[in-house]
Amino acid sequence: MEHEEREYFRSRRERLLARLADAGFYGALISRPEDRRYLSGFTGSSGLLLLTREEAILFTDFRYLEQAGRECPGVRVVDHERKPEEAVVRAVCTSRPARVAFQGDAMSVRAYERLLAVTREVCPEVRWEDAGEALEGLRVRKDPPELAKIRRAVEIAEAAFRAVLPEIRPGRTERQVAWALERAMREAGAEATAFPPIVVSGVRGSLPHGMPTDKPLACGELVTLDFGAVYEGYVSDLTRTVALCDPPEALLRIYETVLAAQLRAVARVRAGVTAEEVDAAARETIERAGYGKYFGHATGHGIGLAVHEDPTIGPGRATPLKAGSVVTIEPGIYVPDLGGVRIEDDVLVGESGAVLLSTLPKELLRLR
Amino acid sequence: MEHEEREYFRSRRERLLARLADAGFYGALISRPEDRRYLSGFTGSSGLLLLTREEAILFTDFRYLEQAGRECPGVRVVDHERKPEEAVVRAVCTSRPARVAFQGDAMSVRAYERLLAVTREVCPEVRWEDAGEALEGLRVRKDPPELAKIRRAVEIAEAAFRAVLPEIRPGRTERQVAWALERAMREAGAEATAFPPIVVSGVRGSLPHGMPTDKPLACGELVTLDFGAVYEGYVSDLTRTVALCDPPEALLRIYETVLAAQLRAVARVRAGVTAEEVDAAARETIERAGYGKYFGHATGHGIGLAVHEDPTIGPGRATPLKAGSVVTIEPGIYVPDLGGVRIEDDVLVGESGAVLLSTLPKELLRLR
Repeated sequence: MEHEEREYFRSRRERLLARLADAGFYGALISRPEDRRYLSGFTGSSGLLLLTREEAILFTDFRYLEQAGRECPGVRVVDHERKPEEAVVRAVCTSRPARVAFQGDAMSVRAYERLLAVTREVCPEVRWEDAGEALEGLRVRKDPPELAKIRRAVEIAEAAFRAVLPEIRPGRTERQVAWALERAMREAGAEATAFPPIVVSGVRGSLPHGMPTDKPLACGELVTLDFGAVYEGYVSDLTRTVALCDPPEALLRIYETVLAAQLRAVARVRAGVTAEEVDAAARETIERAGYGKYFGHATGHGIGLAVHEDPTIGPGRATPLKAGSVVTIEPGIYVPDLGGVRIEDDVLVGESGAVLLSTLPKELLRLR
Repeated sequence: MEHEEREYFRSRRERLLARLADAGFYGALISRPEDRRYLSGFTGSSGLLLLTREEAILFTDFRYLEQAGRECPGVRVVDHERKPEEAVVRAVCTSRPARVAFQGDAMSVRAYERLLAVTREVCPEVRWEDAGEALEGLRVRKDPPELAKIRRAVEIAEAAFRAVLPEIRPGRTERQVAWALERAMREAGAEATAFPPIVVSGVRGSLPHGMPTDKPLACGELVTLDFGAVYEGYVSDLTRTVALCDPPEALLRIYETVLAAQLRAVARVRAGVTAEEVDAAARETIERAGYGKYFGHATGHGIGLAVHEDPTIGPGRATPLKAGSVVTIEPGIYVPDLGGVRIEDDVLVGESGAVLLSTLPKELLRLR
């Protein structure tokens, strides 16, 4: 790890500790894997990160001790010896007992009950509190190392899409195209796909999250491809819908509507604008064209270490967008027994507008 | 879905309902994704399954309604309209209120609090109880469609390993070998890898869960490959350690020790024998050879819809193995600054002994 990047981990922890202090917490137990990685650098699949005013401790098991030691400079790595809750309570008890925050949406009911039982036994002075806002949206503003990784994840996905275009033709199956796309991303440097690529064609296009099947692509269909790469933990998430030969007018009209909605929503993105305003820009365009009931999901979501993170760009989301956050803009129309269209870009929220991170063309691509 | 397989889904639900009735529950809320799939057939990533004496209901969102309708015959599919807890409570309230089980290890503290809040408001007669044992180990005994899928997942992984052997040679990097293995599994019919393949070489072999790096393989090293395929949701999980050219005597001795431990543990597997007895068969062999402190993990674990499921084959696990369960047997020795060895097979627990599902050779393979 480069020296500069270490400093970012340290400053993320310091920012969180300041927030916790404002909310009167002595420390926090971080159990959400993405937050754990964000704050410590640990890439393993299991562990608990305890942050207090005194130190940062990562509790993990036998399998990850060596790795965690290398990945987490400035963090003390402790083997919890199969009793993570007990190790945590003992550690937080060494100092003056106090309120400690936990992540109620990332801890199971049963783990919490174990934590409370151990606390009663070992250190009843510790008070656990679901921290709610004090621990939410930690990762919304991306710092320079994060942005560089997201940009690379976008580049990899785009290179793969371009490489795979010749494979998107009548006779090839959805599954073949999905695998070609996945393979191209991996060979272009993705450490994994952000999620199994979605490739749906024809009437199957009405399944917003349909998995690819052995259905062959056919002339006259639209094909929707939703895919993303992971690069050093950070994801991209892109969708394009392409045409095979000459699709019917009904589908072309839907395409034009989604494209107009997507462009309007992107144009509306700016620091300080609320998420619901951006959503409304897409939704109203689709509603005015008469397809309102065929757009059932949100217009977008944050991306970073997770494929879906804050902010959600949907109805009723009054939070203003923050400069430095990266979001998808992905309206769609899904008409059962006809087909569907979705167009998705990744954009960086800037003070004066959106910076498009993805650059694939959006006019309808006709393949044959 | 074939008619026969539908009947298995129905009989899994009936078996669970009988268990619940024995424990005095009116029904259960299934939130663990693998259990949801096991009981309903639903392959989507989000949803809650409510099973009561009257019916089975899957609550999911817009994205999955069409798909769930097709995948889940005999299950009513309901759009929860972004309020899953409310939809669940209303559904369970239509009948005579009673005790309803939930999965405390698969529900977050916050989701549970929402559930309780809605219950107080909408139907205070419902009592939620973490079901513990009544909902655990549901999937331990595999039925014929499950076994067929696991067998196929093993075949795919083994074919890939054989195909990739020529790539495991000095100069190739761990990452290149891992990708070759992953690609070979996907091209042999895996819908995904069960987990990112582990390929560690030389001193890196002491990392039981090390991720592949750009380190080139070298003569005199051992290389450990831990990999598995997913076929129709079911996984395989295999490990082989191979030698490049002529490794030092110290590593060869470790290999022989792990192999002896693995063979003994496999020989100990039989319905009715406890998990800890099987673990002890491996552990004692390793301890007697003087490597006890270098074997830090359990000897094995169940596989199926999850890569790690019941039973765990480790110290202190007094549960008798059940006929029809499928487990890994995977002892290892990991010596820091020297290297490591792990050998892992997938075995079916039978009334009179283990049935090996994996068939790759276990004598040390020397490549160059």
